[in-house]
Amino acid sequence: MAMKIKYAAYVAGSIDGKIAKNSLSGSNWTSKEDRKFFQKSLKFYDAVIIGHNTFNTYKKSLVKRNTIVLTSKASGFKTNGSVVFFNSKKENLRKFLANRKYKSVAILGGPSVYNFCLENKMLDELFVTIEPCVFTAGVPMFAGKLFKKYDFSLESVKRLNKKGTILLKYKYGN
Amino acid sequence: MAMKIKYAAYVAGSIDGKIAKNSLSGSNWTSKEDRKFFQKSLKFYDAVIIGHNTFNTYKKSLVKRNTIVLTSKASGFKTNGSVVFFNSKKENLRKFLANRKYKSVAILGGPSVYNFCLENKMLDELFVTIEPCVFTAGVPMFAGKLFKKYDFSLESVKRLNKKGTILLKYKYGN
Repeated sequence: MAMKIKYAAYVAGSIDGKIAKNSLSGSNWTSKEDRKFFQKSLKFYDAVIIGHNTFNTYKKSLVKRNTIVLTSKASGFKTNGSVVFFNSKKENLRKFLANRKYKSVAILGGPSVYNFCLENKMLDELFVTIEPCVFTAGVPMFAGKLFKKYDFSLESVKRLNKKGTILLKYKYGN
Repeated sequence: MAMKIKYAAYVAGSIDGKIAKNSLSGSNWTSKEDRKFFQKSLKFYDAVIIGHNTFNTYKKSLVKRNTIVLTSKASGFKTNGSVVFFNSKKENLRKFLANRKYKSVAILGGPSVYNFCLENKMLDELFVTIEPCVFTAGVPMFAGKLFKKYDFSLESVKRLNKKGTILLKYKYGN
């Protein structure tokens, strides 16, 4: 029997659920407390899953990690050091991760990757950082095409700094 | 000198910042704890501002309140009992509210109304209820056309029930 992999997604957004100005602007607008939490958390995972745009903005800090970059441009998958460019429409991602014997995988976005993992039951835990600002427009957390209600339950709330950045931890299901 | 009116917006959304499935589906999907908080809060305001679609879904519970329904269909404003249909492009809303001697006004959405009030500095406090679910698609909290960062500061966090509905209170500015 295959080991169950634990999947945890990390998202940082505004009060109104936007994670960036546009798909290339990156998420380095968040508080230093959030970035510190995020960097510390990454140590606990065997690998990370990330979209191509998001990978380009994080490249430097990921280069030594087991990184699966989801992209529709690869035909199948292509390995480059610790980085794998992976087309999830042509290859089975779950099978790939199981073959690599990963036990815990962090999902780093962007919206299409969060959505892909949620749809495919590869999102057991959700860490959401909410920065105290409103963007009114921008990139949404999840890139769903159709409305669907996925239930979570709240595990904890933590205030990260004085101005009011908060960190919410959810578990999938209710 | 005109009295300063206190404006407070009330929003309930999913973890990913969606407030409804579509613009006509209403916000009666939220927890009973949120609806109770919302109904109790309304008592403290002299009037409410609401968009036309949102008004249609709340009509019954608002009929006795001083209600300003923002609509682009009215030419100026039209009074019907305690309800005023108001075109904010043809009339000055701030002036109208000041003439009525209102001291506190609650803003009930939807996204265009929240955005209008935010843009026009008519949003001093923001009460956000986050229900523990992800919608991936749907109506966003704010209907901004352009990305803009509005800073808030967090006043309090309250957990409303066991499954993890939380209520965040923010003040405009930092």
